[in-house]
Amino acid sequence: MVIICEQGATQATVDAVIERIKAAGLEAYLNPGVERPVIAVLGVVDRDKMGLMEQFIALKGVERVQRISAPYKLPARSYRPEGSTVRVGDVVLGGEEVVVIAGPCSVENREQLLSAARAVKAAGGRMLRGGAFKPRTSPYSFQGLGEEGLKLLAEARELTGLPIVTEILDPDDLPLVAEYADVFQVGARNMSNFRLLQRLGRMQKPVLLKRSPCAKLVEMLQACEYIMCGGNENVMLCERGVVNFDTATRNITDINAVPVLKRWSHLPVVLDPSHSTGDFRCVGPIARAGVAAGADALILEIHPDPANALSDGGQSLTPKRFTRLMGELRGVAAAVGRTMAPESA
Amino acid sequence: MVIICEQGATQATVDAVIERIKAAGLEAYLNPGVERPVIAVLGVVDRDKMGLMEQFIALKGVERVQRISAPYKLPARSYRPEGSTVRVGDVVLGGEEVVVIAGPCSVENREQLLSAARAVKAAGGRMLRGGAFKPRTSPYSFQGLGEEGLKLLAEARELTGLPIVTEILDPDDLPLVAEYADVFQVGARNMSNFRLLQRLGRMQKPVLLKRSPCAKLVEMLQACEYIMCGGNENVMLCERGVVNFDTATRNITDINAVPVLKRWSHLPVVLDPSHSTGDFRCVGPIARAGVAAGADALILEIHPDPANALSDGGQSLTPKRFTRLMGELRGVAAAVGRTMAPESA
Amino acid sequence: MVIICEQGATQATVDAVIERIKAAGLEAYLNPGVERPVIAVLGVVDRDKMGLMEQFIALKGVERVQRISAPYKLPARSYRPEGSTVRVGDVVLGGEEVVVIAGPCSVENREQLLSAARAVKAAGGRMLRGGAFKPRTSPYSFQGLGEEGLKLLAEARELTGLPIVTEILDPDDLPLVAEYADVFQVGARNMSNFRLLQRLGRMQKPVLLKRSPCAKLVEMLQACEYIMCGGNENVMLCERGVVNFDTATRNITDINAVPVLKRWSHLPVVLDPSHSTGDFRCVGPIARAGVAAGADALILEIHPDPANALSDGGQSLTPKRFTRLMGELRGVAAAVGRTMAPESA
Amino acid sequence: MVIICEQGATQATVDAVIERIKAAGLEAYLNPGVERPVIAVLGVVDRDKMGLMEQFIALKGVERVQRISAPYKLPARSYRPEGSTVRVGDVVLGGEEVVVIAGPCSVENREQLLSAARAVKAAGGRMLRGGAFKPRTSPYSFQGLGEEGLKLLAEARELTGLPIVTEILDPDDLPLVAEYADVFQVGARNMSNFRLLQRLGRMQKPVLLKRSPCAKLVEMLQACEYIMCGGNENVMLCERGVVNFDTATRNITDINAVPVLKRWSHLPVVLDPSHSTGDFRCVGPIARAGVAAGADALILEIHPDPANALSDGGQSLTPKRFTRLMGELRGVAAAVGRTMAPESA
Repeated sequence: MVIICEQGATQATVDAVIERIKAAGLEAYLNPGVERPVIAVLGVVDRDKMGLMEQFIALKGVERVQRISAPYKLPARSYRPEGSTVRVGDVVLGGEEVVVIAGPCSVENREQLLSAARAVKAAGGRMLRGGAFKPRTSPYSFQGLGEEGLKLLAEARELTGLPIVTEILDPDDLPLVAEYADVFQVGARNMSNFRLLQRLGRMQKPVLLKRSPCAKLVEMLQACEYIMCGGNENVMLCERGVVNFDTATRNITDINAVPVLKRWSHLPVVLDPSHSTGDFRCVGPIARAGVAAGADALILEIHPDPANALSDGGQSLTPKRFTRLMGELRGVAAAVGRTMAPESA
Repeated sequence: MVIICEQGATQATVDAVIERIKAAGLEAYLNPGVERPVIAVLGVVDRDKMGLMEQFIALKGVERVQRISAPYKLPARSYRPEGSTVRVGDVVLGGEEVVVIAGPCSVENREQLLSAARAVKAAGGRMLRGGAFKPRTSPYSFQGLGEEGLKLLAEARELTGLPIVTEILDPDDLPLVAEYADVFQVGARNMSNFRLLQRLGRMQKPVLLKRSPCAKLVEMLQACEYIMCGGNENVMLCERGVVNFDTATRNITDINAVPVLKRWSHLPVVLDPSHSTGDFRCVGPIARAGVAAGADALILEIHPDPANALSDGGQSLTPKRFTRLMGELRGVAAAVGRTMAPESA
Repeated sequence: MVIICEQGATQATVDAVIERIKAAGLEAYLNPGVERPVIAVLGVVDRDKMGLMEQFIALKGVERVQRISAPYKLPARSYRPEGSTVRVGDVVLGGEEVVVIAGPCSVENREQLLSAARAVKAAGGRMLRGGAFKPRTSPYSFQGLGEEGLKLLAEARELTGLPIVTEILDPDDLPLVAEYADVFQVGARNMSNFRLLQRLGRMQKPVLLKRSPCAKLVEMLQACEYIMCGGNENVMLCERGVVNFDTATRNITDINAVPVLKRWSHLPVVLDPSHSTGDFRCVGPIARAGVAAGADALILEIHPDPANALSDGGQSLTPKRFTRLMGELRGVAAAVGRTMAPESA
Repeated sequence: MVIICEQGATQATVDAVIERIKAAGLEAYLNPGVERPVIAVLGVVDRDKMGLMEQFIALKGVERVQRISAPYKLPARSYRPEGSTVRVGDVVLGGEEVVVIAGPCSVENREQLLSAARAVKAAGGRMLRGGAFKPRTSPYSFQGLGEEGLKLLAEARELTGLPIVTEILDPDDLPLVAEYADVFQVGARNMSNFRLLQRLGRMQKPVLLKRSPCAKLVEMLQACEYIMCGGNENVMLCERGVVNFDTATRNITDINAVPVLKRWSHLPVVLDPSHSTGDFRCVGPIARAGVAAGADALILEIHPDPANALSDGGQSLTPKRFTRLMGELRGVAAAVGRTMAPESA
C-alpha cells in the first residue's frame, strides 16, 4: 500500500499517519517525494488488516491510497503457479482439452431438452447446460420449470452421459439443486450474492462463476475468494460480457479478460459468447476468438427451435449451426496446441 | 414493437413473420420501407406476451426488433400521473419536503451508533441509516454485527425518534430484519436478486431500492416491478453511482437519472452521494446538486470518527461537516421550492 | 512513480531496474515488499522524463508501474492555489459570479441569431454562443454558415454587448475566427487535436476547452497543458457529458467532475447541460445541479424555434423556458453563496 | 424513422406532427398504438433530410424518435454486398489473405527503424507501420521526427519492399505525408476530425481509419462516409480498443466489432491488439483472437528494444516474440480458411 499525502502536508500530519500505520502492526517508510510526502506501507496485510486502506484514506492530510498487492489470495496464480484443473466426471477443465458446454438457456420441456442434449453429445460437446431456475428481468417472463426442469436434466444426463451445469439462484434451493447438478452455475446477477457464495464454498461440487457485467476482474477474483476460503477450490471463471456505450451488440465481450485471468489466476477460464454478444450471428466468430485467446472452455446456448424459445431465442444456435461451429473450433484449438473432443457416432 | 427485416427479405419471409405475430394474438402492420420491410406490431403486449420480442428476433429474415412501449407498468408515471408518496412514520417521501437519511455505513458499536444518531437528529435528518448485515467485496472484511446491530438501531430509534433504514441481504433474514427495520434497503448488488424482491413485494414495509452500478434505468424499473406486482407499492428509487471509465471518483453520479426517473416514474427518487462519489470531499457538492436536480431525498454516510470506521471511512462525513452541509441543503431546497426539516434543539 | 516487480523477480532483475532508474537521473528506493519487490522512484520527473514510465513498464521483471504525481503542471491547483479567473470583456469567470453563456447551437440566419441574442441578454445571460463552423456526425448535415455566421455573431455582439463564444475546428481557420471571437471554443471532438491546441496556446484570447466524451479528467488537464505551455493561461474547463451504457439520455453528465476539477485545478469550470443530457427536458434540472455543485459557468443552447433548428433542436430551450430557468438558477446561486446577473430591462 | 408520441397526446398534436412530416416531403403512417400514438415515417431520407430527426424530437407532443435505417450509405454492406478489397501495391486487404502490418510506434532513428522493418519482412509481415508525426497526451513527450521520419520510412520501404502506413495528424501535413505514405493512418483521436477526413476523401490513397475509443460503430461508419463521399473508397476500418470501467488493461478490445463490421459494411476490417490491450503480454492472444473472429488484417507494434522505446514500449513486441506469434497466426488463419504470407528467407 502507498499513501500519498496532500501537497503541503505538515510534518505533524505525516507523523500522525506513520503512527497510525505502526499502530496497525505495519511498517511505514517515508519516501520524501519532491512534490508531496509519500509513505510506503510494508508488512503482511492479512485478513484482519484488509479494511485498513479505507481507514487510511480518511486520515487528515491523506490525498489518496494506492493498493500494491492484489486483494485476493486463493484464486491468485501465485497460490498455484502451475495452474489448477477442475474435474467433472471424466471431463477436465484447465488442461489440454478445450471443453464445450452447451444446451438451451431454459429447460422448457422434455422434447426440447432431450433434442438439444443429443445434439450437444453428437457434436462433441462435453457438458450440458440448462436452466431450471431462471432470473428474468421482467417478473412476467417465464421463470423456469423448477424441480421438474432439474429432473429433465437428470434424464438427459442419463441418456447422453453428459454432466449437467445448472444455475443456482438462492441459498434455499441449494439442497434441491445439489441433488441434480454436477456443476453449480452462479449467474452474473449473483456474482456478489455473498451468502450464496459462502454456501457454495462449503460444498465440494464445482462452481462456474459468471462475471457481473460491471465487475472488474479483481472484484470477480474477490468473489471467487468467498467460495474458495470456505474450502471449495473447484471454481471456473466465466467471462460473459460487460456493459458498454455501444448498442451494436447487447454487451461487449471482454476478450482481454481471457489472457489477463490466465495470468492473474490459476483457475480455468470459460467464455460465454452467447451472452457476451446476445446475437447468434456473432456467437461463432467470438467462440472461435475465445479458443484462440486461450479460454479453457466455452459455454454456448443452443435450441432446436430458437424462434419459439421461451428465453434467449435471439442468441441461441440451432443444432445445425452448432455442429458446424464445433468443426471450426476444433481447427482453432489445434492451431493453438489444444485438443477438443471429436463428434460422437 | 417494430420488427425490422433484413434487406432483401422475400415476401414469403415477411409473410411468415406476420403470420407469427398474428398467431401470438397481435396485429401486424407492414410499413413498406424503402430500404427494407418494417413491421409494426400492434396490440396489448401484456404479461404473457413479454417474451415475444426475443422470439421474434430469432425469426428468419429479421434484422432486429425495437421496443416501443416501456417494459414496465406499475412503476410508470402513467400508472399514477400525479406522483406517489411513501410514508414512513411521520416522514413523507415524494412530497414537498426534501428528506435527509443519514447514519454510519455499518453499525459498529453502541457508542458509535448513538453518537451518529444524535448528530443526524440534531442537524435535521429525518431517518437513520445503518447496516447490520454488510455485503463486502472481500470475505475477510467486517461483515456487520447482525442481530446485535439491529438491536442497537432499535435503541437509537427509541432515543431519537428516527425511523430506521437498514439493508436486507437475503430472503432468510427477512423475518428478523422485519422486526427492527422501518425501511428495507436493497443494496446495489441485490437489485436483481429477484427472489428477495418477490419476498419484499409481499411485505407492506417500504423498500429503498438501489440501482446496480450497471443497470439501465429501465432495468431498475423492471426490478421495481418485481416488488410492486406482489402488492407492495411503497418503493423508493435510489441512484448511487454507475461504473465509468474514469478513475477520478469511484463511481460516476448519474445526475441525469434524477429528472429522468421523475418523468418516467411516479415513485420518490433518492440520491446517495456517498456511494456515487466514494470521497467525502465530493459528497457536499453532489448532495447539493441532487437537491437542485429534484431528488426527493438524500441518503448520506456519517461517522463520528471516519479514520477508524470499519467500512466506508473514506466517504463518510464527520458530524460537523454533515451539520454544515445540512445548512447549505436547506438553502438549495428553498431555491427550488422545497422544504427541509430545521435543526432540532 | 512506483515500480511493482513480478513475484519471484530475482535480485539481478531488480538491480537492473534500479540501474535503469539511476541512468535516467532519478533515485531508486527499494521497498522490500513482502510479496514482491517494489521500487519507489524519487526525483523530479520533469518534461524530458515524462516518457520514462512507458519504458519502465517494458523492463524485464516489471509487473506494472503506478504513477504518483499528477502528469500535468500548469493547470494544477498547486500552480495557483488561490484559483485563477478568466476575463472576457467585463465578464469574469472563476470569481463570485456564476456566468451563463447561451445561444443557438448553429448560427442559421440573421433573424434567428438576433432573436436568440436578445433573449440571452434580456434574461441575464453574459455571453453569446453560436457555431459558424459545425462538426457534424454526418457529412450531409448542415455544416455551418462559415464566415457569414461569424459576421452575424459580430452584429449580435454589437447589438447586445455580449461577448462571443464560437467554435474553432481547424488551425487554418484561426486567423479568420480570431477576427470575430471573444472566446475560442474547442469542441469535444477536438480535445486531443494537439496542433490546434498548440496554436491556441500562442494566442492570448481565452479558450473554452470541452472534455471529450471518453477523456479522463487527467487527460483533459493534459490537453489543457498543451495550451498553457504555449503561454496562454486563459483556459476554461468544460464538462459536457461522457459516454455511458445507459441510453436514457444521450450522454451522462459527470457532475462529480465539477468538484474534482475545482480541487485538482485552479481554472474556471463550466458545465454544458445541453450536450450532457441531449434532451431539453433535462437541461433545467442539470443546470441547477451544476450551479449547486460549484460550477463557475453554464453554457446552454437556446433557439427561438427548436422544431425547425438546423442542429440540436432536441436539446435547445425556447427563450421562454430559458428565462424561467434563469430565475431558478439565481436562487440556487444565492443559496451557495454566488451571484448572478439580473434580468436586463 | 418512428416517432413515438407522449401518452395522452391529443389528435391535434398528432395531426401537427403528421403535417410536419409531409411538409418535409415524406409520408406519415399513424399506427394507433394502444398506449400512445406511434407514427411511422416513410420515404427516402436522403442527404438533405438527415437533420430532420433532431427537429422532429423537438416537436410538441413527441416523446422520442427512433431511427430505422442506418445513417450511412457508402460504407454499408448493401452498397457492395459482395464485399470490397483495398489494394496497396501487391497487397490486397479484404480478400483471402490475412495481412499483418507491423512496425514501431514511432520512427526514432535509422537503426531502430531498419531493424524493425527487416524483422517485419522476415517474419511474413506485409506492410510497415511507423509514426513520424505523433499525437501525444503530454506536450512534453516525444512528438515524432517529422519529415526526417518519413524519409527513413521511405528508405525502409526501399530496403524491404514493404508499403508504408503512417499517421496523418493535420490537413496541412497532407502534401508532405502524401509524398511518402502508401496508406494514410487516421488515429483514434482524429476519427471525428472531419476536415481531415474530407481532405482524405479527395485523395486516392488508401486510408486506415481508427475508431475513437468512445465511438459507436455506427459513428465510425459515418466518419467513413466523410471520406467515401469525397470519392475515395479505399478505406479500412480499424478497431483499437474502447474505454471501459475496468483497469485490468488500458482499453478493452471490442472483439464483437469484428463480426458486426463485417456484417454492416463491405470494407476490410483491421484489429490493433497493441493499442486495444496496451500490454505486450496480451497482444499475442488477442491477435490470434482477431484472426479467429474474422479480421482481414492486424496492425502490431514491434520494437527492437522496447525498454528504450520513445513511445508505447509497454505494448511493443520484440522481433523474437513477433516472429513466434506470426507462426501461431498462420495456424489460426488456416483453421478459419484464410491464408497468410510465409516467412521470407
